[in-house]
Amino acid sequence: MGDGMTNRIGHAGLAGRRMSAEDAAGLIQPGMTVGMSGFTGAGYPKLVPPALAKRIAAAHERGDEFGVRVLTGASTAPELDGELARAGGVAFRMPYQSDPDMRKCINGGESEYMDVHLSHVAPQVYAGNYGKMDMAVIEVTAILPDGGMVPSTAVGTNEAWLDVADKVIIEVNANQPMDLEGMHDIYFTSRPPPRDPIPLRHTGDRIGEPYLRCDLSKVVAVVECDLPDRMSSFTPADETSKRIAGHLIDFLHHEVKMGRLPENLLPIQSGVGNIANAVLAGLKEGGFSNLTAFTEVLQDGLLELVGGGTVTVASATALSLSPEGVKEFLDNIMLYRDKIILRPQAVSNHPELIRRLGCIAMNGLVEADIYGNVNSTHVAGSSVINGIGGSGDFTRNAYLSCFVTPSTAKNGDISCIVPMVSHVDHTEHDVSVVVTDQGLADLRGLSPKQRARAVISNCAHPSYRPMLEDYFDRACRTSKGKHTPHLLAEATSWHQRFLDTGSMKS
Amino acid sequence: MGDGMTNRIGHAGLAGRRMSAEDAAGLIQPGMTVGMSGFTGAGYPKLVPPALAKRIAAAHERGDEFGVRVLTGASTAPELDGELARAGGVAFRMPYQSDPDMRKCINGGESEYMDVHLSHVAPQVYAGNYGKMDMAVIEVTAILPDGGMVPSTAVGTNEAWLDVADKVIIEVNANQPMDLEGMHDIYFTSRPPPRDPIPLRHTGDRIGEPYLRCDLSKVVAVVECDLPDRMSSFTPADETSKRIAGHLIDFLHHEVKMGRLPENLLPIQSGVGNIANAVLAGLKEGGFSNLTAFTEVLQDGLLELVGGGTVTVASATALSLSPEGVKEFLDNIMLYRDKIILRPQAVSNHPELIRRLGCIAMNGLVEADIYGNVNSTHVAGSSVINGIGGSGDFTRNAYLSCFVTPSTAKNGDISCIVPMVSHVDHTEHDVSVVVTDQGLADLRGLSPKQRARAVISNCAHPSYRPMLEDYFDRACRTSKGKHTPHLLAEATSWHQRFLDTGSMKS
Repeated sequence: MGDGMTNRIGHAGLAGRRMSAEDAAGLIQPGMTVGMSGFTGAGYPKLVPPALAKRIAAAHERGDEFGVRVLTGASTAPELDGELARAGGVAFRMPYQSDPDMRKCINGGESEYMDVHLSHVAPQVYAGNYGKMDMAVIEVTAILPDGGMVPSTAVGTNEAWLDVADKVIIEVNANQPMDLEGMHDIYFTSRPPPRDPIPLRHTGDRIGEPYLRCDLSKVVAVVECDLPDRMSSFTPADETSKRIAGHLIDFLHHEVKMGRLPENLLPIQSGVGNIANAVLAGLKEGGFSNLTAFTEVLQDGLLELVGGGTVTVASATALSLSPEGVKEFLDNIMLYRDKIILRPQAVSNHPELIRRLGCIAMNGLVEADIYGNVNSTHVAGSSVINGIGGSGDFTRNAYLSCFVTPSTAKNGDISCIVPMVSHVDHTEHDVSVVVTDQGLADLRGLSPKQRARAVISNCAHPSYRPMLEDYFDRACRTSKGKHTPHLLAEATSWHQRFLDTGSMKS
Repeated sequence: MGDGMTNRIGHAGLAGRRMSAEDAAGLIQPGMTVGMSGFTGAGYPKLVPPALAKRIAAAHERGDEFGVRVLTGASTAPELDGELARAGGVAFRMPYQSDPDMRKCINGGESEYMDVHLSHVAPQVYAGNYGKMDMAVIEVTAILPDGGMVPSTAVGTNEAWLDVADKVIIEVNANQPMDLEGMHDIYFTSRPPPRDPIPLRHTGDRIGEPYLRCDLSKVVAVVECDLPDRMSSFTPADETSKRIAGHLIDFLHHEVKMGRLPENLLPIQSGVGNIANAVLAGLKEGGFSNLTAFTEVLQDGLLELVGGGTVTVASATALSLSPEGVKEFLDNIMLYRDKIILRPQAVSNHPELIRRLGCIAMNGLVEADIYGNVNSTHVAGSSVINGIGGSGDFTRNAYLSCFVTPSTAKNGDISCIVPMVSHVDHTEHDVSVVVTDQGLADLRGLSPKQRARAVISNCAHPSYRPMLEDYFDRACRTSKGKHTPHLLAEATSWHQRFLDTGSMKS
């Protein structure tokens, strides 16, 4: 993106606080709690975190301790999570992360990690759960003459970090297009009660102002930057994803036919990745139109639907595009900025709005069990992958909560349908529909045993189906309680076998 | 309660549809989905269900099949769940129930049961998850000349059942005092989108009208009744409950002192039972005042706080009082009806309101694990006790989510703190505080391992603490992932040992 640094710092006082990333990083002390911008590889600070990592590494070389507590909106990129993790500088991390090195630190026991619903992140900081925030490091597109700031490609928790942090470092990124101005809608919901109803009735309503603001006396450094977001590449949908999408689209058509959903559905929320993009493509191919999206992250698949007119308006907290997506976005930015609204994640993921609008939630999972409990975060109960993200915000409050997954993983060595999940992120009370490449199980209105039959016969891979049937049959016969029949001694034995032998197959 | 049937059926047309409970029950056919009133032993129909149970038993004696699908607000009483369960007439039951015979049918595999968040019950019926509702059987206090109905001691899902059911049977219960008129606030939130913001800003706001209404042409029977609610007796708090309450009250004082809660706290939600009553008593003894309660059920403990002025206003969906509580309520009904508001459970438990008001949720549990996951419903993963009730509605959206439990059950043979819960109703993402008679673990802002140390040292009973420490230490050393260290092969072995030997002790 980008158009150089001309006029990006319009406020004279703040222009006078320009300094190098190294000098700015020098203001961050060991033990500090640092709130950074960043949401799914978008809008994160790109210069100060690497400079901080160098400072930490140097301290470690001198034998000094140097760890910080890092709070973000969600996942960032190698320059932030990766560099800080490799420097061994993250004592505590919250919330969602997806960096391989950060994950290694967490699962290796070197970094403490807390996995929080994304709508809860800012409210929990306001409530004092993480102590005071010493420093915020926030990327913006520009600072206006009156001190208002044009957010960049993610809003995330920025409005809150700017509000609560003792001191603030701003990274002004000239690589972000000035035409982002006006796309954002900043509204505060996270401060403690009393609170008003959030006056949003439709996906496209604007209820705040397009700028971030803070007490400018807190700004201790302004760092100039000209670097692109991470921009993960977009991979076309594979056959498995297309089959999953097909089952879900058929189901949505059926729901419309039965009168349980309107023809243009209800606002859709879509998780990230290959399957999500296949589902979005399927909506268009399936003939749906006049859709809206009330979601968390806007990826290429959704951008295409907005561009093509299938989706009339999309609300999210971050733009997470591929290089091709960025080009398309920039080439037609005047079209997109009218149809896309970026909000704080406390608004984009707010239970009040998700429930009111009646979202259709579609999220991936790690594994589901036969009774409809879903694990979104852990391998074999112990190693975290990325975190729960916003899936709980949407799943718990949606009109329809769908989960999509291939029926197996690791070349068939893992069944994504198991007798009992090894970790629960979404309970039996919150899961409406489970979809795999094998088929779809509609769990609405079903008792646990009815759900088990549907999940095993519709969703499980044929190579695991007999094992699941065998487990369920024996559990039904011998379990003391027959409401949710289980054989506790072997309920998680598939995971143990995977740890021992590399495969869940017996 | 009660003042006879004089003037209780003010509408001439409906007065003409009076019939016996037996004749009314004759309108309910095999296979029907029947929505009944009732919430925690209050406001349930008292004559039609026993008559229906007789009809079912007679059919079974003739060799005919006769099962119905029973949907209520929450738990009822022996006349409803008990009689229908003993007749073997409940094919499907939803949501919360607490009757020993109904529980036996569910855990024996004779009745299918679905456990639903109480705020989701009516919305899921509107969404079509349970097919069409053939019949509603609703207790009211009186029918007014214009056909409006004065609700009785529970609103529950009544406004929804009257709206969606094909046909309606009304039980007019002269045992419910006419002075209940005006206490209720009926507002619709459950119908599908589009929906407006719920215009409630304070616990005491009234946003609807005090009467239930329906299309009167649907009313096929009016049955006269003069019977009291179940009225479970109130048992004074034991030492364990008092210790639990003491720890929680100390914590709340500390939070006020730290500036994290206002002096009059935030609206409190309190589960049912002995510990909850001890906590409420503790609030008064602890010197708190000007409190409000935004909760689900109003029991004796809360009535006392309202009567004494410690709680200025209480919002709930049901009055579930002891005989002494009923007497106190009736003796001072003009005082209480100004300070108590009964709402539909879709409003009393609505995530929008719980989040906005910032409730302090306090609920019981069956077991918690060292990482802060909570099981509210299942024994050893398989047998359901009562159901999740509203605990998920409040826990997931509260400002502070507290769980209270004795550290052991069954004379010490069960530890309520276990390595891994056998069923998850509230995930690690949603639990702020766990309190037992041993102490309190404040889990806010902590990683899983930090939580485990707090739960083991503060909450576990000394007779199980070394076993938990041993499990956690070995898991930390040998678990492949060190984010949530577990030994899957023995994670639920305590439950298996309990099933095998009657005790979790090794």
